[in-house]
Amino acid sequence: MTTTPASRTPAGGMPVTSTLVTGIAELVTNDPAHGGRLGLLTDAAVVVSRGEVAWVGPAARAPAADRRVDLHGRAVVPGFVDAHTHLVFAGDRAAEFAARMAGERYDGGGIATTVAATRAADDATLRALLAARMAELRAQGTTTVEIKSGYGLSVAEEARLLRLAAEVTGETTFLGAHVVPAGVDRSEYLELVIGPMLAACAPHSRWVDVFCESASPHAFDGDEARAVLEAGRRAGLGLRVHGNQLAPGPGVALAVQLGAASVDHCTHLTAADVDALAAGHTVATLLPGVEFSTRSPYPDARRLLDAGVPIALATDCNPGTCYSSSMPLVIALAVREMGMTPAEALWSATAGGAAALRRDDIGILAPGRRADLAVLDAPTHLHLAYRPGVPIARALAGDGTPAPRR
Amino acid sequence: MTTTPASRTPAGGMPVTSTLVTGIAELVTNDPAHGGRLGLLTDAAVVVSRGEVAWVGPAARAPAADRRVDLHGRAVVPGFVDAHTHLVFAGDRAAEFAARMAGERYDGGGIATTVAATRAADDATLRALLAARMAELRAQGTTTVEIKSGYGLSVAEEARLLRLAAEVTGETTFLGAHVVPAGVDRSEYLELVIGPMLAACAPHSRWVDVFCESASPHAFDGDEARAVLEAGRRAGLGLRVHGNQLAPGPGVALAVQLGAASVDHCTHLTAADVDALAAGHTVATLLPGVEFSTRSPYPDARRLLDAGVPIALATDCNPGTCYSSSMPLVIALAVREMGMTPAEALWSATAGGAAALRRDDIGILAPGRRADLAVLDAPTHLHLAYRPGVPIARALAGDGTPAPRR
Repeated sequence: MTTTPASRTPAGGMPVTSTLVTGIAELVTNDPAHGGRLGLLTDAAVVVSRGEVAWVGPAARAPAADRRVDLHGRAVVPGFVDAHTHLVFAGDRAAEFAARMAGERYDGGGIATTVAATRAADDATLRALLAARMAELRAQGTTTVEIKSGYGLSVAEEARLLRLAAEVTGETTFLGAHVVPAGVDRSEYLELVIGPMLAACAPHSRWVDVFCESASPHAFDGDEARAVLEAGRRAGLGLRVHGNQLAPGPGVALAVQLGAASVDHCTHLTAADVDALAAGHTVATLLPGVEFSTRSPYPDARRLLDAGVPIALATDCNPGTCYSSSMPLVIALAVREMGMTPAEALWSATAGGAAALRRDDIGILAPGRRADLAVLDAPTHLHLAYRPGVPIARALAGDGTPAPRR
Repeated sequence: MTTTPASRTPAGGMPVTSTLVTGIAELVTNDPAHGGRLGLLTDAAVVVSRGEVAWVGPAARAPAADRRVDLHGRAVVPGFVDAHTHLVFAGDRAAEFAARMAGERYDGGGIATTVAATRAADDATLRALLAARMAELRAQGTTTVEIKSGYGLSVAEEARLLRLAAEVTGETTFLGAHVVPAGVDRSEYLELVIGPMLAACAPHSRWVDVFCESASPHAFDGDEARAVLEAGRRAGLGLRVHGNQLAPGPGVALAVQLGAASVDHCTHLTAADVDALAAGHTVATLLPGVEFSTRSPYPDARRLLDAGVPIALATDCNPGTCYSSSMPLVIALAVREMGMTPAEALWSATAGGAAALRRDDIGILAPGRRADLAVLDAPTHLHLAYRPGVPIARALAGDGTPAPRR
């Protein structure tokens, strides 16, 4: 990868305002204007300026720019949109993971371990952990990340986690309704969540979410989840739902009925759930890293695709059920384990994630959209699934320069 | 990670001859002297000198050295030993991968595509591809790699591929008996392999290998495989076998009978095969990246472990059935899909690989052994399986400095 000033540099040492990114063997735009779902161009170039895409097209017709970055035959895709993570936490649960792999059953109770460690960590510690995780994401090609609270479970701690998350992303989600803390009365906790906790957290949040799961005693049932979501909506937040991860339940139907942007997991769906998703305006966000890391059956992506349901793919990066931040691994799992094509998986990891966040400025590379690009050490996007585990993707900065590897 | 000269630096600007690597939260030595199979130490340090380990022990008792590298609480493990790859090739088979994921069956015939592209590539092209792949391996923590020929399938081309492989590793394997080329008479090709091809390749090779597979018409049966191996032995080469990948067959029994260092794949074993391995001196090298990338059933690692068979884990990195060079992914798959513990998987990816190459200077961190270290961006080795897809491992150079990320 080489960077050179163009022959016409800006006068008087002015800051560079436009960069021509060229040498792109394959460009995935997700822009149907270029044909197909992925809007593929070969031998392409992109001009980025002030953090936005200014021009997309064949390299041979590229306009002049202040600077030129040559990617020497690599592929470029929209930066990954990871629409489901739990990145603000402290502590280490690797031993719990190893125990689960040796046969112990996971029911969600391990969250308490992370809650204790996170509460005990000061702001500086959590900021450092968060910064390292954000760098790790970008080094793997992710340019937008949603971050949930849910390891505070008190008014002050949930607000603190969201305040810290909002320092690194605009996509923050209040998840006080992650679990009912041990030893706390369910109905009292629910009142806390939809009352003072929501009031303290809403200023730092774009979204509200709830873990609606009939199979877990720590989670929330349909009526409780509805109360959380309706309160969140009254506070001005958009809606997201954790639903149908461990067993069929009311989460998906509720999410669609309330017009949530996304219902996440969708591992156990009835025919009615699929019909509801197909008829509604809620994205199904699938998180196959969780099934990988918990040795559980994968969601049936083809059933959803065949029904016309929009799918997002995300990591669910969290210390309990999937401590992976790798969107390329999620794509490889979607192809290997869920029968998605590499093109469907890539679209869902980019444009699908953008839809799950109700964003039209990301997940697509077209003039006026954000210059969120990821470059692959590979000639085509197929290599994301073809080269599992190999770190071939990394984000490009808004000015077209590659993010440093960690 | 910080590097500082020690208070006592070498006089007169002499080259640094010893480095103290410290700040190691967990050190995996694979040295039973430290207890357990992994020989774990916490709060440890290593002194490396002239490419060898000079000292291993608790950080508090570390001796002085010319230079000090502080890993700030990371884990260190022996560098991965990837004892089965096919790294010398040209061409791109990503589309074939995508087709197979869409339901086409793989029988090995796709190798011809790579043979054509590899023959068409000049030395400089192959050297550049190989150099990029070697850098990719080191950036993921691999410090020893075995490389097979098998995409030349003529006297001159096989010798060329091994000559190029020998430029980057001492662990080169003559695999003229990869497949019978299309349109070539089987018996004539076999005579070529064990005659002039072997003679031309032996000077560049440490090992001979054969694809012994009763389920593939392109591969070699038991009698043919025996002829290849016995000829290789007469030429002074050590023995390796591709066996029992697609179906039960004679490969494993033959490998044990002839005292091969390793029999690789072992996906379909009879009880007699397991008994033979347990009684013999041949390592079973499992390649779960292949099963991942071909959507095939995984080998039964626990059956082998329970029988006391030594297991190596390797990538099989190749353009047809597994284009992954990621030993961390292989470890994660071994834990998730084959029921190995994280400790068993790490041992097999390091000491197991060394055993499969009959090497006692690698795969263990002890005084006098090679200073092949991999550092993890994590506090324990458990994170290799706990953080699938995340590039947390990278090799340290023989002088203790971290390898650059690609």
